[in-house]
Amino acid sequence: MASEKLRALYSPSSSAVIGASDNPDKIGGRSIGYLRDYGYAGQVYPVNPRREFVQGLPSYDAVGKIDDPIDLALIATPADRVLEELDACGQQGVRVCVVLSSGFGELGDAGKQLEQRIVEVAHRYSMRVLGPNCQGVANIATGSIASFSTCFATHHVRDGALAIVSQSGAVAGMLSDIHSAHPEGIRYWVASGNEADIGLGELIHEALRDPAVRVVEAYCEHLKRPEELAQAAEYASRSGKAILMLKAGVTPAGSEAAGSHTGALAQDDAVVDAFLRHCGVVRADSLRQISDLAKVFAGRKRARGNGVAILTNSGGLGVMMADRCRAAGLEIRALRPATKNALDAHLPDFAATDNPVDITAELLTNTRLLSQTLPVLAGDPGVDVVVVALGIIGRGYDVAAIVDDITAAHHDSDAVVVVCWTGGDEAAVEELSRRGVATYTDDAACVHAIGRFVEHCRRQSARGRGPAATTTTFAPPAGGSITEWARHASSTGLLSEFTSKRVLRRWNLPVVAGRVVPDADAAVRTAREIGHPVVVKLSSAEVTHKTELGLVVTNLRTDDDVRAAADTVLARAENAGIGSVDGLLVERMALGHLEFAIGARWDDTFGPIVLIGAGGIYVETMADFQLVFPSSTRAQIEDAIRSLTIYPMLENHRGTGPLDRDALVELVMSFSRMVGAAGADLAEVDLNPVFVAPAGHGVSIADALVRLRPPEGAR
Amino acid sequence: MASEKLRALYSPSSSAVIGASDNPDKIGGRSIGYLRDYGYAGQVYPVNPRREFVQGLPSYDAVGKIDDPIDLALIATPADRVLEELDACGQQGVRVCVVLSSGFGELGDAGKQLEQRIVEVAHRYSMRVLGPNCQGVANIATGSIASFSTCFATHHVRDGALAIVSQSGAVAGMLSDIHSAHPEGIRYWVASGNEADIGLGELIHEALRDPAVRVVEAYCEHLKRPEELAQAAEYASRSGKAILMLKAGVTPAGSEAAGSHTGALAQDDAVVDAFLRHCGVVRADSLRQISDLAKVFAGRKRARGNGVAILTNSGGLGVMMADRCRAAGLEIRALRPATKNALDAHLPDFAATDNPVDITAELLTNTRLLSQTLPVLAGDPGVDVVVVALGIIGRGYDVAAIVDDITAAHHDSDAVVVVCWTGGDEAAVEELSRRGVATYTDDAACVHAIGRFVEHCRRQSARGRGPAATTTTFAPPAGGSITEWARHASSTGLLSEFTSKRVLRRWNLPVVAGRVVPDADAAVRTAREIGHPVVVKLSSAEVTHKTELGLVVTNLRTDDDVRAAADTVLARAENAGIGSVDGLLVERMALGHLEFAIGARWDDTFGPIVLIGAGGIYVETMADFQLVFPSSTRAQIEDAIRSLTIYPMLENHRGTGPLDRDALVELVMSFSRMVGAAGADLAEVDLNPVFVAPAGHGVSIADALVRLRPPEGAR
Repeated sequence: MASEKLRALYSPSSSAVIGASDNPDKIGGRSIGYLRDYGYAGQVYPVNPRREFVQGLPSYDAVGKIDDPIDLALIATPADRVLEELDACGQQGVRVCVVLSSGFGELGDAGKQLEQRIVEVAHRYSMRVLGPNCQGVANIATGSIASFSTCFATHHVRDGALAIVSQSGAVAGMLSDIHSAHPEGIRYWVASGNEADIGLGELIHEALRDPAVRVVEAYCEHLKRPEELAQAAEYASRSGKAILMLKAGVTPAGSEAAGSHTGALAQDDAVVDAFLRHCGVVRADSLRQISDLAKVFAGRKRARGNGVAILTNSGGLGVMMADRCRAAGLEIRALRPATKNALDAHLPDFAATDNPVDITAELLTNTRLLSQTLPVLAGDPGVDVVVVALGIIGRGYDVAAIVDDITAAHHDSDAVVVVCWTGGDEAAVEELSRRGVATYTDDAACVHAIGRFVEHCRRQSARGRGPAATTTTFAPPAGGSITEWARHASSTGLLSEFTSKRVLRRWNLPVVAGRVVPDADAAVRTAREIGHPVVVKLSSAEVTHKTELGLVVTNLRTDDDVRAAADTVLARAENAGIGSVDGLLVERMALGHLEFAIGARWDDTFGPIVLIGAGGIYVETMADFQLVFPSSTRAQIEDAIRSLTIYPMLENHRGTGPLDRDALVELVMSFSRMVGAAGADLAEVDLNPVFVAPAGHGVSIADALVRLRPPEGAR
Repeated sequence: MASEKLRALYSPSSSAVIGASDNPDKIGGRSIGYLRDYGYAGQVYPVNPRREFVQGLPSYDAVGKIDDPIDLALIATPADRVLEELDACGQQGVRVCVVLSSGFGELGDAGKQLEQRIVEVAHRYSMRVLGPNCQGVANIATGSIASFSTCFATHHVRDGALAIVSQSGAVAGMLSDIHSAHPEGIRYWVASGNEADIGLGELIHEALRDPAVRVVEAYCEHLKRPEELAQAAEYASRSGKAILMLKAGVTPAGSEAAGSHTGALAQDDAVVDAFLRHCGVVRADSLRQISDLAKVFAGRKRARGNGVAILTNSGGLGVMMADRCRAAGLEIRALRPATKNALDAHLPDFAATDNPVDITAELLTNTRLLSQTLPVLAGDPGVDVVVVALGIIGRGYDVAAIVDDITAAHHDSDAVVVVCWTGGDEAAVEELSRRGVATYTDDAACVHAIGRFVEHCRRQSARGRGPAATTTTFAPPAGGSITEWARHASSTGLLSEFTSKRVLRRWNLPVVAGRVVPDADAAVRTAREIGHPVVVKLSSAEVTHKTELGLVVTNLRTDDDVRAAADTVLARAENAGIGSVDGLLVERMALGHLEFAIGARWDDTFGPIVLIGAGGIYVETMADFQLVFPSSTRAQIEDAIRSLTIYPMLENHRGTGPLDRDALVELVMSFSRMVGAAGADLAEVDLNPVFVAPAGHGVSIADALVRLRPPEGAR
């Protein structure tokens, strides 16, 4: 049902233009000209009470006067007339409205209220609305151009396998312009503006439903409904398609600029970035990069692995591309002896049959050299991607044979064949692309795109394996329901360290052994029972920075040490005037070789977010952390840990060898289950430090802090 | 004198072609065709004993038969005839020969010996030689094209302010092709091949001497004579020009490929990279990137600082560019109130006068808007670079006025004005470039290039301030001459830790206090004298991994502790069968909050190299280090330390605040002086760990190892 309205948006059988202008250069006039220029076959109804004809078409006084059913109505009136026009559209039975008019949320709170009323009108009539403050929508295949973007006039946009879905009309126009110079055509083009109703996620999802669409290029300044994007990404993943996204507002400067541009609040880029990775949305950094990535992602073949072979007619180009492979996560594979022998049979003696394979200028003499060598390379089991790197192909080369041989090798092998043709023949580059071979003219862009593609293929195939840490229906164990602990919380929702650890223990998280005791005598007895060395800390739900206040004493090995520490901590607490003291927390001292921090917080847009990072002094000064979500799979959690700067120390810690990575992953999985089950009731959790011992010896949570959602009144 | 021969290479008054062919498609024929096509006005003498005329020119039987003076002789014969032709050239008085022939060093040792003989012939006649195995040299201004590269046929190369100096002819051709699509022209083009005689450094230096040349684009696979490049870079720096370099062979895969391509050995890329930065050579990553960087580096203005203002007609483009600024080291500056007021006067209410300044579509209405706003922005004292970011400029815009206003703002202000015109008018982009305004069509490339440019300007201006750590003439202090210590060294050149530290102390490096004693009794006495806590270690020039062998005991606080440790260490040494034991080293225990490692080694190509890195476990697992040179300035050493991953911990260590960064810098300066003075006699020094205490409390070298150059026989 929702999809049926969005189908009407992309492929309307009939369109009304409200505020239609006879001048094809005016906002209310451009669409009518474009519909004609791009050969739209549906009915077009201009609405303009002051004219009998608009650009040669009979004009209507009001949308209600149109008797035929209308799929799409374009509204190009001033902002103050939009609501009444929407209402009229609703009454007429229009399925979807596109509000081009600006003067809404981007101007502040009054505008935002107006948008709320747009949504109310839409709901009343079960009508959907694109915009307001948007540049509209276009379907190049049907010629339905409900947009005033000048990009449709600058170049005649060609139909193809791309969809451009953007919050900014200007950016959508620039993307379309960039593609005008490339062979890849565009099926859908939509600029969503303020997204009062229809958002990016739904638009992307609907575009992907078209079998002709292979890749969506999206531009986002503020992600409003992440779950819709997640669904679209899920659909893309199932159908072997890809969503590429340019997410702006990364830095404070950028997000302030985005705020003044769209009126939306800044989002924490680290969270958005983690969410996109989580969903399998591929993030691009620039307009040129997104259009470069689209070439290789548009292909129907997926890469089995990261093994690359380069075949080149320029030694220097081969060297440069081989160099860039490592940073892109690609591996220049050693060729099998059988492969090298087979290449030797066709190549002259001075050619290099090591990878990169340098065929020198032999292609000039033997025009079918590629047909003899490419299938051999592509057939080597270690080679997942073959890069054909062509330098200058001047006079005397048989370009048609080169194009044929590359195309055949790509289609007839399991490996993906990608071409980098620097200073290449434009027609040949276009022809290769048309035949489904991703073809670049820049070495760096080519290797970068292959690297991102291979990484995406790996993540997509790994994601399927292994269960997610949690699902939303996961039931908490006895005593694990977060709400049960609310009565222990301070006024701001804080639980004491001891209570925090009790909660964690219910979820089987590896908390160090410990007990709360009233005084020094009890501390000495408890220390003996749990075994030295111990740590003595103040237990209170009020104090969060115990170390800084001298309320933690570590490495206590004798009765005397424990007694002295207990007395000191109690005295300091009294001097500091700390009220709600539960007593002393006596714990076995955690042992381990590397400190991590694991945390979670509730985000109103994204729900619970889990942090894994370097602990101790590193988490603060180095900002070495990664974010995952309760629905992340084990593979995703492993990827996140592998991405930490300190990861090499986990793999090979000096003097001890590998540490217990598996136990750390298991801890994050269990922790995520708890966080997912708790939902919004759990405001924040911070486990820091978590010590990781050598492989097989586990992990232990040395300090923990849980903050529940404060009671309604306190928020 | 050297320069005069190179001038003949770039601008010969007369040229002979030995092995001249009548077929303009053959290697021996192309140059003659190019010389005609590009309008060379000098004399051309084909040498071919089997022909009377070559491509219409009278042919000579031998170069010796030419009576006129010859500046440049191109040799295009088979490899086995090259030596005799060179000899004939020498006798004729030819000033410089270009050997296109391949079949030399790239084929192995026999070929390398042949190259050695080429050099001998050249020296005999005081003649210079380019190549062998090279694609030659071209001067587009004079039309002297002594090359067989097809790039001169593919496009008619235009004269301009760039020089392309490349070890690979194919890469030089690709660079030339890339520029054929850009307005920037090329003055010199040279491919140096195997560099038996003339190398990159000299070629770059000579190209820079031409007042018309602003930027050299260089491609290097193996840097043979770094000092020549350093001289060229010094010249570039003094004359406000720039050297951009693509250095290939970065990764093992790349450098293996480079090795099989040119026959040169792999170089440690970290050293090459540090050396380029040291000299002020700007390193690029790809062909497209080097040509992108050339645009902004070709300008005559330099950036005062990293403050950027963006003026755009597309909010989205402004957001994306603002986002990218931070990663590029640029700062989106808050505008002064006066600036904002002045902008307000010209911009409509809905335009954003915060930075980025979004002028919206107002440029359509007010064609002189840029003349009113750009000078205001460029005049803000916080703004060092103004980026004019133009999205689609469609029908109705006055493009000529836009070009005029941008040009005027660039030339009339202290700020550098750079344009990013996505989907822009090609003619306008070309016109802006012609008028000296760096103009990009891609947002990411634009911001990246500005970032690199600003960073280069900063380094160049900082480099001048403050003295270098050393000069080659620095005299060692008494007892500081490295050769004096040779008699203490082991057979492999190692000094014991104690002796190593004695050497360091002569150079006033902050070594912890300590003494070598024969037995446990003496250790106890010494520990009392220097003060507890102490460390007891074995003293021996033979053992380098004392910790692993249990020969170091730290944190000894009592007489009993010291005695027990001393006995243990001596017993372990005996059990391990260590021969040359000097005794026990008793040292005061070093205190500090962060461990660094400082080291140096001698490199046969680059001389002494100094390493600064994270110490302790980090130096090994994280590879967090930077390289500098004895001639690095204080600013360069500070930059290197700032580039370390652990740097934030030096600035703000948890609990202690900033650590003693100045003392660390001072230590590296003194250390560099020592290393520079010692030269090749010092094979290797390793100070690890070096403890850095809180600001004002200095640094101390806890462990040190010096290895001298082993005696001749032992090497």
